[in-house]
Amino acid sequence: MPRKIDHRERRELLADALMRLAAARGLEGVSLRHVATEAGVSTGMVQHYFGTKDEMMTFALDMVMDRIRERSQDELAPASPRELVRGLLLQVLPLDETRRLENHVVLAFHAYAAVKPSIASGLREAAAETRTFLADQLRAAGPTDGVDPERAAAGLLALVDGLGLQVLSHQYAKEDAVTVLDAQLTLLLGKQQS
Amino acid sequence: MPRKIDHRERRELLADALMRLAAARGLEGVSLRHVATEAGVSTGMVQHYFGTKDEMMTFALDMVMDRIRERSQDELAPASPRELVRGLLLQVLPLDETRRLENHVVLAFHAYAAVKPSIASGLREAAAETRTFLADQLRAAGPTDGVDPERAAAGLLALVDGLGLQVLSHQYAKEDAVTVLDAQLTLLLGKQQS
Repeated sequence: MPRKIDHRERRELLADALMRLAAARGLEGVSLRHVATEAGVSTGMVQHYFGTKDEMMTFALDMVMDRIRERSQDELAPASPRELVRGLLLQVLPLDETRRLENHVVLAFHAYAAVKPSIASGLREAAAETRTFLADQLRAAGPTDGVDPERAAAGLLALVDGLGLQVLSHQYAKEDAVTVLDAQLTLLLGKQQS
Repeated sequence: MPRKIDHRERRELLADALMRLAAARGLEGVSLRHVATEAGVSTGMVQHYFGTKDEMMTFALDMVMDRIRERSQDELAPASPRELVRGLLLQVLPLDETRRLENHVVLAFHAYAAVKPSIASGLREAAAETRTFLADQLRAAGPTDGVDPERAAAGLLALVDGLGLQVLSHQYAKEDAVTVLDAQLTLLLGKQQS
């Protein structure tokens, strides 16, 4: 049992190093050796846990998705469906250092998946799950002003992906991103009753 | 005079080669030499027109923005403010091969600007101009259901950036992206009267 926990922790430690590299210089040209140096371990140790950079990127993406989910659940139980939607989407936006690092690795993954469709399945499944969750919450929080909840959920996720991209690439201020997200929730669900 | 046109054409030819590379394999590790090979010219010729990869990427981004603007104007004059908004946003989405290639270079640029803020100014200015244009058209097409037109414009641009990212990284179908965009326009401006 302790051995298994240790494995998971080591993989997370390496994925965190990958995230720092993604934020500092992008993943362009980053090798397992760079990750080893950043994490302060040997290249052999990295190779023991990840055979390839693809494997490590996929693991890092899954880890980020899990963390977003965990943070949403921790902060938001119990919460109204509308608060759950807003809370999850705020966890996706790069509003603090943790989320900025996460967004860097997700952006790098997007850019990579765009040219390597075979790696995109994890991303596609995570996005579909998130859309379904959001649609369910919107149904509970609704009505969504005549918009089909699945479509409204897809729009919210795309909005947050776009805002994240714009904040990360220095096109748009993070405070403005929150304002735009809130305007969208008001459009869909009306003014908050609280 | 002919000499100047020739320069512009050559630069566009090289930027088009860069776009094809971006779509085929990403810009990771792409050098001026790769661009020369893809364009079928000498490396010296590429270096004559672009000193660095950064310069070439900036030129390619500007070229894509110009082309999007030109296509919108060509297709949409005369058009209602609402049609102008929808038309411009459809030109941004990766709905055909031309726009798919453009989205690849824009995504690569975003990813690069995320780790190199000094290169982001062109992107920031182009985004700000587009938001202002969209806000003006929304004001003319409005009312925007209680949402400030600047904020509504920012939301539309982020939505389309996010949808583009999702389509390109194989998370979402392009037909669905158009449906989500249209749902957003209906939310903001009501059902189309035509």
